Amino acid sequence: MAKAPTVEDVAERAGVSRQTVSNVLNTPDIVRPATRERVLEAIDALGYRRHAAARRLRLRRSSTIGIRLDPYLGGVSGVVLDRFVHAITERASERDMRMLVYAARTADEEIARLTELWEGGEIDAAIITGTVSDDPRVGRLDAAGLPFVSFGRPWGEDDIADPLHLWVDVDGAAGTHAATAHALTFGSRTAFLGWPEGSGTGDDRERGWRDAVADAGAAGIRLVTEDSVPHARRSVAAALAGGMEADAVVCASDSLAVGALLAFSDAGRRVPVIGFDNTPTAEALGFSSVEQRPEDVAGAVLELMMGPTGDVVAPRRVQSGSAHALITPELVVR
Amino acid sequence: MAKAPTVEDVAERAGVSRQTVSNVLNTPDIVRPATRERVLEAIDALGYRRHAAARRLRLRRSSTIGIRLDPYLGGVSGVVLDRFVHAITERASERDMRMLVYAARTADEEIARLTELWEGGEIDAAIITGTVSDDPRVGRLDAAGLPFVSFGRPWGEDDIADPLHLWVDVDGAAGTHAATAHALTFGSRTAFLGWPEGSGTGDDRERGWRDAVADAGAAGIRLVTEDSVPHARRSVAAALAGGMEADAVVCASDSLAVGALLAFSDAGRRVPVIGFDNTPTAEALGFSSVEQRPEDVAGAVLELMMGPTGDVVAPRRVQSGSAHALITPELVVR
Repeated sequence: MAKAPTVEDVAERAGVSRQTVSNVLNTPDIVRPATRERVLEAIDALGYRRHAAARRLRLRRSSTIGIRLDPYLGGVSGVVLDRFVHAITERASERDMRMLVYAARTADEEIARLTELWEGGEIDAAIITGTVSDDPRVGRLDAAGLPFVSFGRPWGEDDIADPLHLWVDVDGAAGTHAATAHALTFGSRTAFLGWPEGSGTGDDRERGWRDAVADAGAAGIRLVTEDSVPHARRSVAAALAGGMEADAVVCASDSLAVGALLAFSDAGRRVPVIGFDNTPTAEALGFSSVEQRPEDVAGAVLELMMGPTGDVVAPRRVQSGSAHALITPELVVR
Repeated sequence: MAKAPTVEDVAERAGVSRQTVSNVLNTPDIVRPATRERVLEAIDALGYRRHAAARRLRLRRSSTIGIRLDPYLGGVSGVVLDRFVHAITERASERDMRMLVYAARTADEEIARLTELWEGGEIDAAIITGTVSDDPRVGRLDAAGLPFVSFGRPWGEDDIADPLHLWVDVDGAAGTHAATAHALTFGSRTAFLGWPEGSGTGDDRERGWRDAVADAGAAGIRLVTEDSVPHARRSVAAALAGGMEADAVVCASDSLAVGALLAFSDAGRRVPVIGFDNTPTAEALGFSSVEQRPEDVAGAVLELMMGPTGDVVAPRRVQSGSAHALITPELVVR
């Protein structure tokens, strides 16, 4: 491999001092235009390869957005965040921004990594995902001065009415409401299979089902279990053994939906089951599911982050009450 | 938000000219050590936040590895590459390297993006995935001088015996060989459901089945179809209608395995089906599948790229014949 061209090589070719080359790269204003032109030509001709990094340094912009990539945990629903990362990478690329992914196992680790990247000038902004009630990241990233947008709404005191930061989320209740309206076309007895109370996302999805059942004056059966196929299978099997009758089942996730399908199949019955997340598993098995539209979430995140001019990053603090976007998911009927 | 400190602020605090600060950041060798020390102290004290970017620029290293993130296409098997990206992000982080992901729809686009990142000094190396026969990326990245490692072996002339670049791959034939040995425990009639001839990966997986059947002196039935659940379902249904008898089915992917399972179920039969990729769908439905071990692939890629000292990037060209790693996958029996 030929040695990469250096500042010295550029200086020699342009017939200027090394200091002048350095000035062109770092403080171009103080260099006469004709000299600057000659140095830039030499840079191009030699393929001196640090000019983009130098330019970013000069502009005090990295044009880079950081996002955490969680360790892979398996499971049916683990792919939803990946779809979002794919989508945000595509959309960011269209805006000449690039994505830096990093690993972190805890909120503290995430805050440490982001602060380090921000202080090192390696990122201009961050996207955080999987917000929880009174999320510790919000205050600390704000204190560090790092602009960020969350995929996930504020679930705690920092709530929708008075948001402290920019966020985009999927309207889970609207999704299960649509799923339940579809379920009711099979009969009035609609079961909901959800997660234990207390998770913002799970409670939101349950509310959509409860409201839709109430709107229709129909009967509802509610089952609650951990988010895994075997848990869901056992839970539904126990309910069926106990005499549960349901015309359709609305589920808070595709994992739960697979478990429900298997339990009905074990009992020799076929009942429509509707999942949430529209994972590849729902597609493969051919059951209906609520699609989160991660591509639209990604578009909305960048819209909030970069603003209408397209080249500024998010204000750190919300200036107006409309600094969020709630994406309406779509029921994919199969 | 307080205005970020500038070069001027640093200069004022250190009692030097702006030019000297610039020199410290860009050509530190020409600055007297005592002055340099004073400027660095001012940078730290003010929290001037481009010092990491400046340091990278000075060291001519970005400590960043580029990898393409394909648009999300759905499907059962689409998650394998994501698992690899998760794993490489974790492993790179342990080595103080970060991952830059970018979008590209074609090999040409990928080459253009990588070349741009490389020439701009934004990445030190790249990982390419999904190698094809006589992959156009190999020669062009090599010509650009960009160090890279591929996840995927060279399938064309540039082959295993005389590799032109560093690569890591999964031994697909070993995977289907293990799957077939397991299948033969259910009876001697083993079917293989694979892809049309001509894809390196598909032919490799078929070879493992064929060899295992031959080793056992058993009978083999071979079906070939496109890699989707409905195609596989139709193909197996047609074979069953035509009188196919099989004690177990070995498949080239989990998508094919789901299709086979559904076809047998449609025909009121239960036959063990073994997939490939060990996706969440295999886990959810409880069928056996060959696990590619993407975490081990990620470890091997970085090992080849960074070398034994841990801080150098891959030589552009292979120096010895052992510059690859073939990971043996593992059959997960369910």
